[in-house]
Amino acid sequence: MTVSSTYGVHSEVGRLRKVLVCRPGLAHRRLTPTNADDLLFDDVMWVENAQRDHADFVNKLTSRGVEVVELHDLLARTVADPAARDWLLDRKIVANEVGWGLMDGTRAYLESLEPTQLADLLIGGMATTDLPEDFRTDFLSMARDSPGVREYLMPPLPNTLYTRDTTCWLYGGLTMNPLFWPARHDETLLMKAIYTFHPDFTGSTIWWGDPEQEWGQATFEGGDIMPVGNGVVLMGMSERTSRQAITQVAKALFDQGAAEQVIVAGMPKLRAAMHLDTVFTFADRDVVTLYPRIMDAVRTFTLRPSDTDPGIAVTDEEGEPFTDVVARGLGLDSLRVIETGGDVYASERQQWDSGNNAVALEPGVVFTYDRNTTTNTLLRKAGIEVITIVGAELGRGRGGGHCMTCPIVREPVAF
Amino acid sequence: MTVSSTYGVHSEVGRLRKVLVCRPGLAHRRLTPTNADDLLFDDVMWVENAQRDHADFVNKLTSRGVEVVELHDLLARTVADPAARDWLLDRKIVANEVGWGLMDGTRAYLESLEPTQLADLLIGGMATTDLPEDFRTDFLSMARDSPGVREYLMPPLPNTLYTRDTTCWLYGGLTMNPLFWPARHDETLLMKAIYTFHPDFTGSTIWWGDPEQEWGQATFEGGDIMPVGNGVVLMGMSERTSRQAITQVAKALFDQGAAEQVIVAGMPKLRAAMHLDTVFTFADRDVVTLYPRIMDAVRTFTLRPSDTDPGIAVTDEEGEPFTDVVARGLGLDSLRVIETGGDVYASERQQWDSGNNAVALEPGVVFTYDRNTTTNTLLRKAGIEVITIVGAELGRGRGGGHCMTCPIVREPVAF
Amino acid sequence: MTVSSTYGVHSEVGRLRKVLVCRPGLAHRRLTPTNADDLLFDDVMWVENAQRDHADFVNKLTSRGVEVVELHDLLARTVADPAARDWLLDRKIVANEVGWGLMDGTRAYLESLEPTQLADLLIGGMATTDLPEDFRTDFLSMARDSPGVREYLMPPLPNTLYTRDTTCWLYGGLTMNPLFWPARHDETLLMKAIYTFHPDFTGSTIWWGDPEQEWGQATFEGGDIMPVGNGVVLMGMSERTSRQAITQVAKALFDQGAAEQVIVAGMPKLRAAMHLDTVFTFADRDVVTLYPRIMDAVRTFTLRPSDTDPGIAVTDEEGEPFTDVVARGLGLDSLRVIETGGDVYASERQQWDSGNNAVALEPGVVFTYDRNTTTNTLLRKAGIEVITIVGAELGRGRGGGHCMTCPIVREPVAF
Amino acid sequence: MTVSSTYGVHSEVGRLRKVLVCRPGLAHRRLTPTNADDLLFDDVMWVENAQRDHADFVNKLTSRGVEVVELHDLLARTVADPAARDWLLDRKIVANEVGWGLMDGTRAYLESLEPTQLADLLIGGMATTDLPEDFRTDFLSMARDSPGVREYLMPPLPNTLYTRDTTCWLYGGLTMNPLFWPARHDETLLMKAIYTFHPDFTGSTIWWGDPEQEWGQATFEGGDIMPVGNGVVLMGMSERTSRQAITQVAKALFDQGAAEQVIVAGMPKLRAAMHLDTVFTFADRDVVTLYPRIMDAVRTFTLRPSDTDPGIAVTDEEGEPFTDVVARGLGLDSLRVIETGGDVYASERQQWDSGNNAVALEPGVVFTYDRNTTTNTLLRKAGIEVITIVGAELGRGRGGGHCMTCPIVREPVAF
Repeated sequence: MTVSSTYGVHSEVGRLRKVLVCRPGLAHRRLTPTNADDLLFDDVMWVENAQRDHADFVNKLTSRGVEVVELHDLLARTVADPAARDWLLDRKIVANEVGWGLMDGTRAYLESLEPTQLADLLIGGMATTDLPEDFRTDFLSMARDSPGVREYLMPPLPNTLYTRDTTCWLYGGLTMNPLFWPARHDETLLMKAIYTFHPDFTGSTIWWGDPEQEWGQATFEGGDIMPVGNGVVLMGMSERTSRQAITQVAKALFDQGAAEQVIVAGMPKLRAAMHLDTVFTFADRDVVTLYPRIMDAVRTFTLRPSDTDPGIAVTDEEGEPFTDVVARGLGLDSLRVIETGGDVYASERQQWDSGNNAVALEPGVVFTYDRNTTTNTLLRKAGIEVITIVGAELGRGRGGGHCMTCPIVREPVAF
Repeated sequence: MTVSSTYGVHSEVGRLRKVLVCRPGLAHRRLTPTNADDLLFDDVMWVENAQRDHADFVNKLTSRGVEVVELHDLLARTVADPAARDWLLDRKIVANEVGWGLMDGTRAYLESLEPTQLADLLIGGMATTDLPEDFRTDFLSMARDSPGVREYLMPPLPNTLYTRDTTCWLYGGLTMNPLFWPARHDETLLMKAIYTFHPDFTGSTIWWGDPEQEWGQATFEGGDIMPVGNGVVLMGMSERTSRQAITQVAKALFDQGAAEQVIVAGMPKLRAAMHLDTVFTFADRDVVTLYPRIMDAVRTFTLRPSDTDPGIAVTDEEGEPFTDVVARGLGLDSLRVIETGGDVYASERQQWDSGNNAVALEPGVVFTYDRNTTTNTLLRKAGIEVITIVGAELGRGRGGGHCMTCPIVREPVAF
Repeated sequence: MTVSSTYGVHSEVGRLRKVLVCRPGLAHRRLTPTNADDLLFDDVMWVENAQRDHADFVNKLTSRGVEVVELHDLLARTVADPAARDWLLDRKIVANEVGWGLMDGTRAYLESLEPTQLADLLIGGMATTDLPEDFRTDFLSMARDSPGVREYLMPPLPNTLYTRDTTCWLYGGLTMNPLFWPARHDETLLMKAIYTFHPDFTGSTIWWGDPEQEWGQATFEGGDIMPVGNGVVLMGMSERTSRQAITQVAKALFDQGAAEQVIVAGMPKLRAAMHLDTVFTFADRDVVTLYPRIMDAVRTFTLRPSDTDPGIAVTDEEGEPFTDVVARGLGLDSLRVIETGGDVYASERQQWDSGNNAVALEPGVVFTYDRNTTTNTLLRKAGIEVITIVGAELGRGRGGGHCMTCPIVREPVAF
Repeated sequence: MTVSSTYGVHSEVGRLRKVLVCRPGLAHRRLTPTNADDLLFDDVMWVENAQRDHADFVNKLTSRGVEVVELHDLLARTVADPAARDWLLDRKIVANEVGWGLMDGTRAYLESLEPTQLADLLIGGMATTDLPEDFRTDFLSMARDSPGVREYLMPPLPNTLYTRDTTCWLYGGLTMNPLFWPARHDETLLMKAIYTFHPDFTGSTIWWGDPEQEWGQATFEGGDIMPVGNGVVLMGMSERTSRQAITQVAKALFDQGAAEQVIVAGMPKLRAAMHLDTVFTFADRDVVTLYPRIMDAVRTFTLRPSDTDPGIAVTDEEGEPFTDVVARGLGLDSLRVIETGGDVYASERQQWDSGNNAVALEPGVVFTYDRNTTTNTLLRKAGIEVITIVGAELGRGRGGGHCMTCPIVREPVAF
């Protein structure tokens, strides 16, 4: 029995036992008005305050009994193992990324660092200007740095803040996700290092995905994926999670007996609807909060195992509301729906500010950003306990509590 | 002697006695991800917290002895005078803006309101959907509202938050500025109503400008303008303040004996350098904080009165640094310069976050945003007292303490 | 009886007798990849070939008996009158546009030119670098020219190519249109000079509009306006023609007895649907060509005179197809509709390439671009004679034959 | 000795013997205003005329003795071999691109086609709507087609028109280039199929590159690469060709004795300078045409073999003009330079319209677009014979004669 054999996520709202987060840091210090768009952030961040607010979120989780593990810590522990360090550097410090003439110096410098320093650079990135004098060569002159534009030997990965997307525990195993934007690809490689070498994670069951393979249009992000229980997984078919990936993962889950049904939310291709969890999350076993302007346009499909090739069958739910199909999948009569609050201005603004991006601590208890006051009030009036996270800085990459958490152990709920 | 005859701004850092601000409100509640760009905001705002942070800024000003007047209050007091109300509605509720068929109803509704309510709508805007049932006509069906897109009978004016731009007191009189973006034009009309009808302001000397005239390319914004003392006015020639306006205002000031010299900072046309005060402000009589990447590219000109037509002469300072020309104009040997703090990332970020947008309470005492920690530290090390404003929400329109204040009485300093 | 008293446009397809066009020229030589967007062009143009193709279009018109007048020619004839020249220069060479210090030299230079040269610069624009040495002053140093960016003393007006928009003859009189984009405002001033001073045009009846007034949101472009006959005028409520202008013009027409009914096509706000004539034009008295993807989304309104204030009444046609309302207005049972041709790709491409932008020579005879082969084939199959214009260069500003012609005399058709 | 052993490109201007082109076709019929940007085209194209102009270009080549091979033809001949067809479909019709549930039908349909039809779809793309009824499954309902947006089972590859980029013959062997934009990746796979299976091409020496590997930041496009002779290869380090690729290819060439020197033009990252051949090409053995605004900003480096790891050494030419370094590399005293012609407007426009994108037939004889009249005149005045290509349609993807040709056999020139 492996050390991680008790890991698993069996619902969206059951008791959260263990969760992975990533604190803001060096990668966010590198965000500038010039590069923010490329790094998928809408604005620059006051990093110290983002760290304070993130630490407060973590404190609230731990004080309510959740075990929180943090990505920098996991990675530092991982690369303390020379085999893990070599495995990662063999894949990161290559001619395709660093370029001939700079590989030896870069690698030598990185090998000279303490594990925590190395983990910082693996997540926070390493600019050509960060290479100390002793490790430089003439080839550095070919790097094109200019005011506001840096060239990197290892790219900064500020979206690690949103641990939800990179890997997903779905019941007793996980997926290693090929992310949509090239700016995020390397996140999954870091997770593979952890799941391969970190003693607490090695041996975990991987349903699907491998960052060392190419996935083409088969992109898959955890923000679209919800193992709601009863053998059902919800998947948003969004800007970032494709039909090509959804059918592969569904087949992999069915083939391995991991799930019995995948309900697909076919969403319009819009940034405001980048993930299902930006417009639809659970607050209790039968309570969801959603943004009607997007969810009303969703087209629903159900995937089930099939005896005939390719082993899956699809049903077009033909206009039946997504929430009704989900309720039926869970064995419920219906879901109670709490819409984004306020007038037309406020609801559009709150959806943008992650107002529907709740993450549950246990049935009926959720975390959300403080700024979504009208939606939070509606949740509270519906009997949900709402614990707030300060979102002034953390929200600038358009992600909330659901995005910032990757549950590793979450209990089932009864339906 | 008019009531306002003691008004005047005689320096950038002398004791601030009276200042105009505008608190966040209805106009900011209308900001959404869809319309924010058109309204010149980079992101939506948590309005309640912006109001809290603005109130705190006002409290800090008043507790240090500054008389603060607020735009909603001034405007409500103004439109309490029926002559003022009619003057404004005659200019706002016209066929060109409201359209035939909706003018009578709109005007009747607005005339039914209390002065404070009317002031709220004049600043906050009025959507077609805001017109009560009793005042509607069939013509309302032609208005094209759709989710995320509103049509307005009076436009929202969220940039009133930045009172600096709309009018400028330059020594003993003021300018009524034609603003660059059409989205801001109506701000100046509100100010004209106040200066025409409000008993505390009527009779003020207007050097130049009239929102009822057309100004073509002659656009002028207070964020570019600094009456530094010694008969000198600094003017940024920026994206928003043009050569065509600068020469007109210089001539108007010279003709009326209001100033002796205008020093022009010819800036690159960039959003990051939208106003001179986003990259250069004073912290003490001989201390400035500036952003070198932009200021190093400035080309400096001096305008002086001339006997020959058109009454002004220009000197191209031919590569002499702007700060040196300014020092000479003030009779100083040189200026002490405090650059935006931190590494290449931090300085670019802090400039963006209004790090150089300080406003002085008195010589050596300035207000800045809390988030510009490294620049604030450098100012403090240079002996400047720095009082911070919470900028998480207020800064989302890219303006700081200097932008949010329109000094009305500021004492001179000796050079 | 004035010289122009026989002018008038009484239908969209009756015999075309006299038309105003504008040949490509200096303004298009100034188009570059850097400035094209600001000047509303999608791409730069091979000017010599555009001139060749335009001349061929004019030849085809004249050889079919149409009298063609050209804007450069009209303007040169106009400014040959010193009173007209002074009237225009008094309005163009002003401090708001040229700036103090450069006005005298600029005006002296322009007054030194022959009328044809002056007309060329009035349409083609005048960069600061075009001012000859003898006419320069020190103030020229403040102009900010850089590679790819020019500063203008008079702006280039490349969209004069599309004479349709600037003025519209509607039955026996015309409108002087306030155009949507600031880059086009000065076009209407040139037309006012012609209608005020040119002996062939002075004394024409002006229904509405004056480029020396400000119109705010009341913008109006001829591409949206069609005097179809039977006392009816069609008006597209588009990105560029607003409710505020439509109701004013309708009222002006009704008050002066010029029309009995205005049928409004409420279009979505999209560049592809910038004017009604980009998606809907007439090819015969009862034949139209249209782009269904846009026209199916049109909401139709009818404006008629009314005894009660403001003198007009509106009817929301509540989902009745635009073509049906138009047919009824003309006293026809129905219109024959020819849709943009080809598959989903071709039809989208042809609409973009002005495939629906036909202009009629007489009933059943139209000009269109050669490149819209599938739509042209459908028109021919429906019995329409199609004469083609080479569109490779002329179409790069997104306008076709309808846009490039401003009919001055067009006969009625019987219904 | 393989059939292709006589292939090789030994200069930029020596006698052209054999060249690969690709005629416009189905891929360009799929271009619409909605998708053109994603497919890297600035505008839609009149495909029939583009085909006419391309055929004329080919005729001019063949009538001057050049053997022209065409990509559709080569590919059709290639997939006539079932092994080649299977090799390609095994790589294209995969779960990552087509998705489970649609693979069998798609493949069955493609296998039912004639080789020419299959080649057409491999280059022109295959939309989900193109799948005939008999080959469809329920999974097709999950594809998200909407007006203006198509989902593809095989992507259209309109940039095959620019055969220059995908593979480069450099002296006696070639590179298989990893292209910068994902929209072009599959082009190289088609070329690999041809070089693997087509009897005229199999056995060619591949210096570097393989479309079945991942190349990360090591992207390389033929428009940047020029085997000028004398053992020298010029490489533009541009938006699309990176330091990481240049150093790899240089090393591969040196290791295999294929070249002795690589001269790198470090260009600014701009679309207008997307490839070296958009701003610099050869017209004769010592004559180049170039766009000074970009070339003046180039920073030059020289790469040479080295005994020490990694086998290459770099020299920063420290401000020496690129043309001087190139002349020295060729053993010439200097290059004669013909700049883009015309005033500031015309030269910017002509560079954009591929004015510097000449391709030589033999020393002193080049093909260019007809529209670049001023540059063509300067070339002719310098004694160059200029043969023109009609560019009205072909140029809309921003490529000229150099981009549209991939030389396979070109003779050396003496220096």
